Amino acid sequence: MSMRSPADIDRLDAEDPLRQARAAFALPDGVIYLDGNSLGPPTKKALTRLRATAEQEWGEGLIRSWNDAGWFDLPQTCGAKIARLIGVDPGDVLVCDSVSVNLFKLAAALKNATPGARLVIDRAEFPTDVYMIESLAALLGPGDGPPILIKSAIDFRTAAIADIDRIEGRTRAQGGVVVWDLSHAAGLLDLRLKARGARCAVGCGYKFLNGGPGAPAFVYVERALADTLRQPLAGWMGHARPFDFRPDYAPAPGVRRFAAGTPQILSLAALDAALDAFDGASMPDVETKARRLGDLFLEGVAALGLPCLSPPSASRGGHVSLSHPQGYSVMQALIARGVIGDFRPPDLMRFGFSPLFLRYADAARAASILEDVLRSEQWRAPHFADRRTVT
Amino acid sequence: MSMRSPADIDRLDAEDPLRQARAAFALPDGVIYLDGNSLGPPTKKALTRLRATAEQEWGEGLIRSWNDAGWFDLPQTCGAKIARLIGVDPGDVLVCDSVSVNLFKLAAALKNATPGARLVIDRAEFPTDVYMIESLAALLGPGDGPPILIKSAIDFRTAAIADIDRIEGRTRAQGGVVVWDLSHAAGLLDLRLKARGARCAVGCGYKFLNGGPGAPAFVYVERALADTLRQPLAGWMGHARPFDFRPDYAPAPGVRRFAAGTPQILSLAALDAALDAFDGASMPDVETKARRLGDLFLEGVAALGLPCLSPPSASRGGHVSLSHPQGYSVMQALIARGVIGDFRPPDLMRFGFSPLFLRYADAARAASILEDVLRSEQWRAPHFADRRTVT
Repeated sequence: MSMRSPADIDRLDAEDPLRQARAAFALPDGVIYLDGNSLGPPTKKALTRLRATAEQEWGEGLIRSWNDAGWFDLPQTCGAKIARLIGVDPGDVLVCDSVSVNLFKLAAALKNATPGARLVIDRAEFPTDVYMIESLAALLGPGDGPPILIKSAIDFRTAAIADIDRIEGRTRAQGGVVVWDLSHAAGLLDLRLKARGARCAVGCGYKFLNGGPGAPAFVYVERALADTLRQPLAGWMGHARPFDFRPDYAPAPGVRRFAAGTPQILSLAALDAALDAFDGASMPDVETKARRLGDLFLEGVAALGLPCLSPPSASRGGHVSLSHPQGYSVMQALIARGVIGDFRPPDLMRFGFSPLFLRYADAARAASILEDVLRSEQWRAPHFADRRTVT
Repeated sequence: MSMRSPADIDRLDAEDPLRQARAAFALPDGVIYLDGNSLGPPTKKALTRLRATAEQEWGEGLIRSWNDAGWFDLPQTCGAKIARLIGVDPGDVLVCDSVSVNLFKLAAALKNATPGARLVIDRAEFPTDVYMIESLAALLGPGDGPPILIKSAIDFRTAAIADIDRIEGRTRAQGGVVVWDLSHAAGLLDLRLKARGARCAVGCGYKFLNGGPGAPAFVYVERALADTLRQPLAGWMGHARPFDFRPDYAPAPGVRRFAAGTPQILSLAALDAALDAFDGASMPDVETKARRLGDLFLEGVAALGLPCLSPPSASRGGHVSLSHPQGYSVMQALIARGVIGDFRPPDLMRFGFSPLFLRYADAARAASILEDVLRSEQWRAPHFADRRTVT
């Protein structure tokens, strides 16, 4: 049970500078959705836009919509919206492909530019980043020169925030470059990447950006750096003049050269519309609210004594991770009660606090339901048992 | 003017074994759409499915839909539908990424498996294929061993059909392998790839498969070959057990190892639904009708004396290419009259004949409108002038 009174919670919501953002979302009744760190929910505008893109632009405009509906420019117009959220120049972000593919392109381009450079990634990083970089190292050789460091701005397990300034400074001092993975940070932290000297990053469209299931990812490369890079997935959409159909590749200026094949317009349109939910939201407010929501939740479950793997709020991102030996079953029981978080092996329950659509009352209520599920041992019901295949 | 009488045309439509397929499509009034070879139109089912995927699966099911709505399996369930159309085993096709990215993965995997192998592509191939393969050769070295030949089954300019049997036989005799690019052939030709010994291919989802703008692409690799390959974009979705979150990459069995990042579900769902328009259609009928539509159109415009770059129908795919020095303006005038084809520099007008939604009457009427546009010189109107930037 939270130590705050209902009146305290109501006051937090009433004074929340982001209190109007929730109205933009299409949320189901009876659900407290604490998994926006894994898949953000749809905004009403994204659903409307998707219908218009499919029914009018595709159905009526047909091939003409590549020009008339701005499909060709969408990877960049959508990128400019993300650029504001992460604090970089609007022309320096391109929306395309997946985080995995973008990481490969960017790390390969950096390595090509500095042949002896050394690819560096911690094996505790998000697995797909580890796989992609190890595969790239196998292809190009590991190198022993200046580092190309791949680093998540927020850890996917604990939500610990990396010390961007320190890591940038140390890596630059070694003549290296950091590729930031912003998957759990974009749309959540006040990143101010350009001001902090960060020159390139990749990130995910479907978590705090709410772009839809498997939404296209993004890549940020500072213009001056981008113009020196050649990425290996040199597809026609990254060509300076794709519709000249010439056999010689000429990379487009800046980050646009990181495009490869034709963008998946339906998914891209949904992301583009979803980003408008950030209109009028200041990123410092977003970051602060995520912390306070997490703190309120942790305060409410403190008496349960569950080990918390997440750091204190000053260095914590948008979720909190609690461990419980039967975490899988506990999470199933919570979901049955309308509190949706997720489970990561071996024993982590993750609760995400998306500041745009969650209220302080939601965080307090979720804590109270978790307390009830544990005290009543509801999670022991046979239908919540962990039947995942052991491999 | 066609030499056939209106009654002849009506009889062709009445006797068309595919005549009922048109009803599955949502086509705008007043348009004869001859650009399904570039972007297929939506089916009614694809539009309905897209709404359900967005509003119910994403909006109501949220994160749970990855399991409950079958999102995880969609790259394979959708791939199985394409497998039938191209004549391979249902488990051997995966829908993912773009043609460009899939070509890179597949060619790189083949080259890794045979280090000295020689990447071979004609510079007249579709430009993105040329760019990707030249980029890959720059990364891995060109090689001088057995060929890895990248070859379009249908040429994007002329629609000439490649001699699959001869090219397969010749390449196999050299110890090599052909990577077929089926972009203009899938959903059009009766390919029967497995029976003809073809072991791998990539292809496009948004042309004759009608999957939507920038729809995800596909990759086919015969199971026995796939199990010997490691592709470099080793993302988590190609891992044997992605949700174990282990730092060591273990490729999934078969073609599933060609997955990289998270699939763009909205675009993928539209493609999956669109493929059902092929239910009940036999591929020999589809191929035959495309030819007859093209022949009828060419018959109708024969008197205009426009040079035709496409071969006779026995070796021609789904479009015909006519050249005209002012082809750009002529195409603009045609579009203004409701006949939508496309233009490819320097002087090619392409007219695509998608057999599922076009009637013989459409092909005849399009020919008659082209004749009128040329005889009346409507294309000389200033607003049809070619204002594309010369680069």
